[in-house]
Amino acid sequence: MTQPIQVTVWNEFRHEKTNEFIRGLYPNGIHAAIADGLDKAGGFKVRSATLDEPEHGLTDNVLSNTDVLIWWGHAAHNAVEDEIAAKVRARVLDGMGLIVLHSAHYSKPFTGLMGTSCSLKWREAGEKERLWVIEHGHPIVEGLGEYFELEHAEMYGEPFDIPEPDTLVLVSWFPGGEVFRSGCCYYRGRGKIFYFRPGHETYPIYYDENVRHVIANASRWAAPGNAPTPVFGNAKPLEPIEEE
Amino acid sequence: MTQPIQVTVWNEFRHEKTNEFIRGLYPNGIHAAIADGLDKAGGFKVRSATLDEPEHGLTDNVLSNTDVLIWWGHAAHNAVEDEIAAKVRARVLDGMGLIVLHSAHYSKPFTGLMGTSCSLKWREAGEKERLWVIEHGHPIVEGLGEYFELEHAEMYGEPFDIPEPDTLVLVSWFPGGEVFRSGCCYYRGRGKIFYFRPGHETYPIYYDENVRHVIANASRWAAPGNAPTPVFGNAKPLEPIEEE
Amino acid sequence: MTQPIQVTVWNEFRHEKTNEFIRGLYPNGIHAAIADGLDKAGGFKVRSATLDEPEHGLTDNVLSNTDVLIWWGHAAHNAVEDEIAAKVRARVLDGMGLIVLHSAHYSKPFTGLMGTSCSLKWREAGEKERLWVIEHGHPIVEGLGEYFELEHAEMYGEPFDIPEPDTLVLVSWFPGGEVFRSGCCYYRGRGKIFYFRPGHETYPIYYDENVRHVIANASRWAAPGNAPTPVFGNAKPLEPIEEE
Amino acid sequence: MTQPIQVTVWNEFRHEKTNEFIRGLYPNGIHAAIADGLDKAGGFKVRSATLDEPEHGLTDNVLSNTDVLIWWGHAAHNAVEDEIAAKVRARVLDGMGLIVLHSAHYSKPFTGLMGTSCSLKWREAGEKERLWVIEHGHPIVEGLGEYFELEHAEMYGEPFDIPEPDTLVLVSWFPGGEVFRSGCCYYRGRGKIFYFRPGHETYPIYYDENVRHVIANASRWAAPGNAPTPVFGNAKPLEPIEEE
Repeated sequence: MTQPIQVTVWNEFRHEKTNEFIRGLYPNGIHAAIADGLDKAGGFKVRSATLDEPEHGLTDNVLSNTDVLIWWGHAAHNAVEDEIAAKVRARVLDGMGLIVLHSAHYSKPFTGLMGTSCSLKWREAGEKERLWVIEHGHPIVEGLGEYFELEHAEMYGEPFDIPEPDTLVLVSWFPGGEVFRSGCCYYRGRGKIFYFRPGHETYPIYYDENVRHVIANASRWAAPGNAPTPVFGNAKPLEPIEEE
Repeated sequence: MTQPIQVTVWNEFRHEKTNEFIRGLYPNGIHAAIADGLDKAGGFKVRSATLDEPEHGLTDNVLSNTDVLIWWGHAAHNAVEDEIAAKVRARVLDGMGLIVLHSAHYSKPFTGLMGTSCSLKWREAGEKERLWVIEHGHPIVEGLGEYFELEHAEMYGEPFDIPEPDTLVLVSWFPGGEVFRSGCCYYRGRGKIFYFRPGHETYPIYYDENVRHVIANASRWAAPGNAPTPVFGNAKPLEPIEEE
Repeated sequence: MTQPIQVTVWNEFRHEKTNEFIRGLYPNGIHAAIADGLDKAGGFKVRSATLDEPEHGLTDNVLSNTDVLIWWGHAAHNAVEDEIAAKVRARVLDGMGLIVLHSAHYSKPFTGLMGTSCSLKWREAGEKERLWVIEHGHPIVEGLGEYFELEHAEMYGEPFDIPEPDTLVLVSWFPGGEVFRSGCCYYRGRGKIFYFRPGHETYPIYYDENVRHVIANASRWAAPGNAPTPVFGNAKPLEPIEEE
Repeated sequence: MTQPIQVTVWNEFRHEKTNEFIRGLYPNGIHAAIADGLDKAGGFKVRSATLDEPEHGLTDNVLSNTDVLIWWGHAAHNAVEDEIAAKVRARVLDGMGLIVLHSAHYSKPFTGLMGTSCSLKWREAGEKERLWVIEHGHPIVEGLGEYFELEHAEMYGEPFDIPEPDTLVLVSWFPGGEVFRSGCCYYRGRGKIFYFRPGHETYPIYYDENVRHVIANASRWAAPGNAPTPVFGNAKPLEPIEEE
């Protein structure tokens, strides 16, 4: 029997405590809605971790037992300790998958792994979003139609200051006139990273069937296999050489 | 239970009939050695097809029941009917995986899908080949060491006139002074293509454990999922527009 | 003094003869409008070639004296001789730049070099197009704003069945709900290819300042430099090897 | 007349003061040898900046008047102030070109912009290096042969923990059995980055004609043009939308 993929859903988990409207949408936190989607998809063992737990819930033990880390943050990126963000990045380079949702484009793990500002355009007007599939053979889009729609979403628009994705799988259309690279795959070190645009704490995005489907596909794609172990540093020659 | 992946191994299958040394290495054909490797890996249902069968063994029925086509050819690329080669290319764009081995760099399906000459340097001197892993998180290199070696191989060297791979997973070193992009992944249409360098009919390459491991990994990676169906042609607007 | 870049603008040049409205827009042919834009930009020596000339105007002499070939075709792709299309592709692999405009996505030189169907969605409704810059540091977008608009254009929408561009520089937005990768760069052989979406014979697209600016930038980018000459075929070792 | 490209060559400049052998090779510092190469190529206005100057020689005024920054460091990466490294990275995202030489793979500007460890294999044995051209149409390889050689170099080998280059232009071969991606191009923000492997303070690498040729080509490629200015943040709709 295949082992379940161990997913940790990290959530800032503050909006849900301080804002009644958001609590109404996500009474147990955004992480619970995401975990519910993965549970229904099957094949995952999901736990959560949140900002205000000790070590933000990301102890060494949790990180080393996490195949895929899903990250949601919005207003408190700076409250994440640099040391914890660095551990997350190191674990990604060592093979852990990382799925970065929506406003987590500005999170320390993502900006540090991208090396760019990760800035973008945004507008909160409850606009429709239509996400077009760009790379049809990629496992992250399996089972989708040629596009899917979200009735109300925060708009994110280009320019999105990221490295060109290793594979661009989704591009979004917004009625206000913008486009956005909304599904972006990266290989980094032994790990895989997927940035997925949809979300916002004021919309029930993480109950949407297509969004859940993509997150489940991405979690399978990003899960580490038995990756080769790179060996760095001073190296003996593998073939006879004439030393100078 | 997961369905097995249906692999068709296509082989020119002429050297083995005309050259005693080659027949000694591959008494039932190169395709049989490749099929044996997949059988031992498990999870595949393998059949073969060869040049001198009617329609080169690639009837519409065979093609439509093939998840992944492995292609080995060397001296008789021109004997492949244009019409069959076109069918293969169309099936790849429609989702069938394609694994192109060694001298099949000059095969009609591959050159047609790449659009370039696919020319390269070569030398038959029984040199060692060392294949270095470049993209550690890619599923095709799972389970490998940081490199693997083949004691005797035909040399292929850069320049290799291909489009830059969507992902470059392996680069080869040869003692004569050359390097080569020896594991190259492409998305094309709904399909996936993997070019894998090792081979040659005069070496027992397709009995090598690492080579077999890569071919099995690649067959899993290239197998189609439930890819979205692109809709081309005249399109009605999805949003109200003002006609000019 | 820098030598001017020798540009040949190839035009199907049939619509302009048979349709009065189109002739009104492009009285001397689309090629003349494109050439005028390049002349005004400066630094180019422009000639034209058209379908109904002998060898479609693309004699060996013309091709070997062309740095950059701009291609516009729409309704008569099949009237282009296979042999001429093959010569164009070979010249691109040998270093000639190729700029493919709008409906030339289905031209023989482009589909052959891409290896995919190059199919897409389309709609003739005179919609607005907004082209967003995606890769700000690329020479093709120098001097543009963060986006530019065309008031009336034929819509092209994803899926666009092309290889993932080596660099994606522009993405279009359309009011009917579609997006499109409208500026796509490719390295192929020693040459460079740029697909640029805007156009259509029924709109004065090739008089637009931004469109002309992009075509001039692309012509500079695609012009061949002194590219290394690849050496293919049987190669002597560069280092001493032990022959088997 | 074309304005010269303003290049600043940054050098750690410590080995040359403390080690007689290195001082013998580079009596005025590695930066002087690099500057000499650019001066001979022509079209550049070159200045230098070194670690032990105030602000490491990289004042705001110097950075804002630098088109292309060339970076050489080896033993004192940690002595570079975080604040200065951050300014360099910000200037790259704003359009300044960055050329990263040899052991500067571990410099703060480069690792920060890449987001990965940038670790690699190395060996000091005075081996030969042969650099093969991989992307023949790229401006950085103009004027080279299909490969060039350095008689004695420090070996760097894969794995090289970098993001897959946006364009891979050179791959190195070493006699000890290793390969290395030795010419790597990146777009980041409005800027361009080129990593170029050759070097080492104990070899006269920066007097080599081919190395100088590549550095001059790369400086031209990386020089900023008139790049579009991205606009980030809260955005008004460009088209009428229905607010929720």
